[in-house]
Amino acid sequence: MNTIELNKNGSVTSPKGFKAAGITAGLKKSGKPDLALIKSEFPTVTAGAFTNNLFAAAPVVWDRELLAAGQSIRAVVINSGIANACTGEQGYKDAKEMAVQVANLLHLKPEEVLVSSTGRIGVPMPMAIIKKGIAKAAAALRDDGGILASEAIITTDTRPKHISAALLINGKKVTIGGMTKGAGMIAPQMKICRPPQATMLSYITTDVAITRNALNACLSESLEKSYNRIIIDGDTSTNDTLICMANGQAGNQQLTESSASLKLFKEALNIVSGYLAKEMVLDGEGVSSFIELNISGARSDSDARKCAEAIARSPLCKTAWFGCDPNWGRILDAAGYCGIAFDPTKVQLDYEDVPVVRNGMDAGTPEEKLAELLHQREMSIHLDLGSGTGKFTLWTCDLTYEYVKINAEYHT
Amino acid sequence: MNTIELNKNGSVTSPKGFKAAGITAGLKKSGKPDLALIKSEFPTVTAGAFTNNLFAAAPVVWDRELLAAGQSIRAVVINSGIANACTGEQGYKDAKEMAVQVANLLHLKPEEVLVSSTGRIGVPMPMAIIKKGIAKAAAALRDDGGILASEAIITTDTRPKHISAALLINGKKVTIGGMTKGAGMIAPQMKICRPPQATMLSYITTDVAITRNALNACLSESLEKSYNRIIIDGDTSTNDTLICMANGQAGNQQLTESSASLKLFKEALNIVSGYLAKEMVLDGEGVSSFIELNISGARSDSDARKCAEAIARSPLCKTAWFGCDPNWGRILDAAGYCGIAFDPTKVQLDYEDVPVVRNGMDAGTPEEKLAELLHQREMSIHLDLGSGTGKFTLWTCDLTYEYVKINAEYHT
Repeated sequence: MNTIELNKNGSVTSPKGFKAAGITAGLKKSGKPDLALIKSEFPTVTAGAFTNNLFAAAPVVWDRELLAAGQSIRAVVINSGIANACTGEQGYKDAKEMAVQVANLLHLKPEEVLVSSTGRIGVPMPMAIIKKGIAKAAAALRDDGGILASEAIITTDTRPKHISAALLINGKKVTIGGMTKGAGMIAPQMKICRPPQATMLSYITTDVAITRNALNACLSESLEKSYNRIIIDGDTSTNDTLICMANGQAGNQQLTESSASLKLFKEALNIVSGYLAKEMVLDGEGVSSFIELNISGARSDSDARKCAEAIARSPLCKTAWFGCDPNWGRILDAAGYCGIAFDPTKVQLDYEDVPVVRNGMDAGTPEEKLAELLHQREMSIHLDLGSGTGKFTLWTCDLTYEYVKINAEYHT
Repeated sequence: MNTIELNKNGSVTSPKGFKAAGITAGLKKSGKPDLALIKSEFPTVTAGAFTNNLFAAAPVVWDRELLAAGQSIRAVVINSGIANACTGEQGYKDAKEMAVQVANLLHLKPEEVLVSSTGRIGVPMPMAIIKKGIAKAAAALRDDGGILASEAIITTDTRPKHISAALLINGKKVTIGGMTKGAGMIAPQMKICRPPQATMLSYITTDVAITRNALNACLSESLEKSYNRIIIDGDTSTNDTLICMANGQAGNQQLTESSASLKLFKEALNIVSGYLAKEMVLDGEGVSSFIELNISGARSDSDARKCAEAIARSPLCKTAWFGCDPNWGRILDAAGYCGIAFDPTKVQLDYEDVPVVRNGMDAGTPEEKLAELLHQREMSIHLDLGSGTGKFTLWTCDLTYEYVKINAEYHT
């Protein structure tokens, strides 16, 4: 088989040699699960990407140190409900203390344990609750605990997001598992072992044998094609984290940057990341429609990206999508103020494959026909600026009453 | 008197030698007034600023040409309901045709007539309706028509916005009158005789005698202290226009850039512009609270501005303000991702004069006390980045259900 098999019931425990747990420590008023643990039974090669927010949370600081030092990671502990951001030195001590406790319970070194937190900023960590929770999670580690873990990391998400993919490399079955949470503060701009944005947390496990450089290269590409091209509300969090752990238990010949099979693995990783990133947008706070924005004809890819981001952040575009209003003027308006150069008289706009704007003016398609397209749960928009070969695709969503409700009333 | 007297019942017809009208042409489904005309009985020195959107509307293109050529302006015609943007060559012909018709009726040259439009983008101008409306408005010009004019230019605004200020220059009474409309697509970045953003339209009349250079300098300063420092939704329109006409009828010695009295005139102009800009935010689409954002301690004024803009555009900050949620983490988060450098451990935040954050961490003020401050109709926020002397003040507002409603359902 040279194919990639997806399993929507898969999770971070689908690859060999990983256990996970998701339990209720008591950090959320709702009483829902709020603490997850992932453990690899074997040493791993691990790549990570983090928020570039100046107020990077304490666990992000801890994780970056471990990955920068090239530590072999064995476990990740994740709490939801409290972000441990803007918590000063005590916050860092608390993050480290979480790693130390996990290490003690699982017979690891603290430097083998990554920590993630998500939730309200500026609140001190209730370490007594956290510690009880960690003990509970360590005792609950299971071979099939991945879905429970994916349930414990969510905040305003309405459902857990997890998947796995299987492929053959040199005749050996390789599995990739993943889980993510998102919902709000989502506009990640992560860099490999540097910070992303928005509290999105995403964890990928795989049993592939791979070198650190090859894994970094794969994750870097995946990131650009998935998490770094989504915008829900446009706010970039202090806690964004993407971790990819590979423990080599598939028994394939170790992949390096020059392996012929690396391409297939990369493809599978891109599918897993793309699926999770898209799920994050579909389950974004209050989201009722998913919009794929394809920009082309810009003078450069970076110009195309600027244009896409302006449209994706525009409250007027987002509310028009919510209202199923074909008001294309708002899209052109955002392109027109985003700070890039192009010839407005050459602009073409299509909803799906239906012409909306030609040469910067109304293409004459009846409004009712356009409005129908907007009533779909998912729609693609294609804006061609007619001024070059630069292009960029971005996934975004509408802005709804529910978004305002969630964020005007959000107190974890 | 060396004082400036404000009159909230004043308008663009308060200065000597100006007439105005506001009538219903029939452009709005609501049947409300939708066409305004301002006329100076005497030649004027006129300064203007316009949107920098690449899709600048046809009337903006026409106005820029007249002001760039140094034309003495005698009249402005303004319609609401349709933006005449993204309408191609026909749009430009229509804008010019509006000027020609006003000129014929008022015995002026077309080059003496500015044109403004606001409303839906991409819709052709119904010239038959417009022409009937212009004839009606020309017949309705009155010495006290300023308030009627201010009523005819509004779109989603809930009330007209107008004011006048009087001062003495060399013993002569000088009057400044102004009107504005805003509500949505508001984040103006206007430059003198270049385009601003968001459909804000603002007209200032004065009977002062002043040179073109001095008026340009005054308007330029006013702009930066008023319209260019407001953000309602962060979208910058294709039609933003600020016009200031001075007809010299006060009989003062002509002000030049070196006149000692220029300072007082400038102060009065700043007060009028500041009042109108603030009114625009207070009457922004769905706005329930007005927020003055004071940023200090940045490495430069431009860094401070970037930081203020990120906070003012953040849906999470704006919905927290709506929810009267003191969630200061969202403000620090936005500062942290806005792309400027500062030391996060030196950051201080205050709501009014109450400490919220000290050294990047919770200052310990009880949440209830902070929430009380947020229940005010107007609140000031002071964020000090502790890393320099750069500062910037911006006026913004919350994001409410009503904003989503207006913009998901807006069809002029």
